[in-house]
Amino acid sequence: MNRLIVLILIVAVNYFSQIDKSENWIDLSYTFDDQTVYWPTNETYKMEVVFKGINDKGFYYSSNKFCAEEHGGTHLDAPIHFAADRKTADEIPLSSLIGNAIVVDVSESALADRDYLVSVDDFLKWEEKHGEISDQTIVLIRTGYGKFYPDKKKYLGTELKGTEGVANLHFPGLDPKAAEWLIKERNIKAVGLDTPSIDYGQSTEFMAHRILCEKEIPIFENVANLDKLPENKIYVIALPMKIKDGSGGPLRIIAKIL
Amino acid sequence: MNRLIVLILIVAVNYFSQIDKSENWIDLSYTFDDQTVYWPTNETYKMEVVFKGINDKGFYYSSNKFCAEEHGGTHLDAPIHFAADRKTADEIPLSSLIGNAIVVDVSESALADRDYLVSVDDFLKWEEKHGEISDQTIVLIRTGYGKFYPDKKKYLGTELKGTEGVANLHFPGLDPKAAEWLIKERNIKAVGLDTPSIDYGQSTEFMAHRILCEKEIPIFENVANLDKLPENKIYVIALPMKIKDGSGGPLRIIAKIL
Repeated sequence: MNRLIVLILIVAVNYFSQIDKSENWIDLSYTFDDQTVYWPTNETYKMEVVFKGINDKGFYYSSNKFCAEEHGGTHLDAPIHFAADRKTADEIPLSSLIGNAIVVDVSESALADRDYLVSVDDFLKWEEKHGEISDQTIVLIRTGYGKFYPDKKKYLGTELKGTEGVANLHFPGLDPKAAEWLIKERNIKAVGLDTPSIDYGQSTEFMAHRILCEKEIPIFENVANLDKLPENKIYVIALPMKIKDGSGGPLRIIAKIL
Repeated sequence: MNRLIVLILIVAVNYFSQIDKSENWIDLSYTFDDQTVYWPTNETYKMEVVFKGINDKGFYYSSNKFCAEEHGGTHLDAPIHFAADRKTADEIPLSSLIGNAIVVDVSESALADRDYLVSVDDFLKWEEKHGEISDQTIVLIRTGYGKFYPDKKKYLGTELKGTEGVANLHFPGLDPKAAEWLIKERNIKAVGLDTPSIDYGQSTEFMAHRILCEKEIPIFENVANLDKLPENKIYVIALPMKIKDGSGGPLRIIAKIL
């Protein structure tokens, strides 16, 4: 009988650990291409073919080069983006980029109001359904604006470039009071969302950024495919390009449903 | 008694699944900076500060932009790099970039001969110790040259640039016959190593690349910290920048010891 228990245990543990190591990862990253969304004052992503075709040795070869601002497309904001002497992109430990995650869906409110601020109440509503947000959770906010990407008029609120574009940005963001609450009351690990900025489009003071960066909380912006995730029991791996002294950078972020 | 068994099962499964979700990830990626190693004919990585300091609103802000070739630093070679009509960087499924991995340590032979070709025998020696390489394994080859990175003279064999630099490249690589064997006989998922190229420095035909790319096998180059891994029971997550039509690109690759 003891042997049977041990056998059952071994089979069960192997079975469950295989489930956990399953490769059903969901990609939460947009491609970098000529449609990639950047801040109106940023230069856009540019890729150039270095070589493509049959070379002088007679075999196929292709290679490209590209230029990019750090804060476009699916990307990381490192704490130093809005807080002096905080961590750069390459300094963020992997443990701050990987872990259990939740999706807080505010799309009903946010799609009805382009200037919507995600509030403490929105998180409390999530908690009514799922229980208190655990320590060191990666919080993903689904505003629903992901479905507009990369249509700049619909996603950003404007196609204009430069300071005129900035003045006309209209997309939802995180209320600075909620940013404060997520840190102090829920000790979150990181935060991400499906808009170009954690601060809403009309922000001029960028207080949500400043509060999160001050406390070394990594921010993930232009996160894709949040509609493909449940609200709870998610595991996220967010791997930014390891840019020395980077204030952020291109991010490949993936999720698994636990 | 049945309840006891169920209880033991629940505890054990939770215990082991927590171990599996532990966050002891090891970073196998170098930073991108002005020392990043590129092919002698490539342009080097360049980063430019866009803004850094207190802005006109009175708060700290920093942001940068950068230009890079796809194939420098820790990076992916997508199948299309050396095979027409094969997958681009953005098209490679996550399941081809994530999975169980092994480290084949050939550093003793490779450090004794800068032009060393990793052979089928090297993999058979690994198998003598650990058993046959499983289907869909990510094979990491440790030549030992990682310890020289980013010293170009020691790592590449030359500090020269351009075609003169290419002629003087001396670092170990994978024997094309072994590339063929890994695909046909062991059905590997991906391959990586701690040198700038899967083909050795003196290669002119790039046959290992061509064989692997033809068969849609992703290649990881300039992989860091392979000396920090055991030879077996590793789990690897390799997330390249999602470059549309990319022949490769900056790669963040991490590993966990199972």
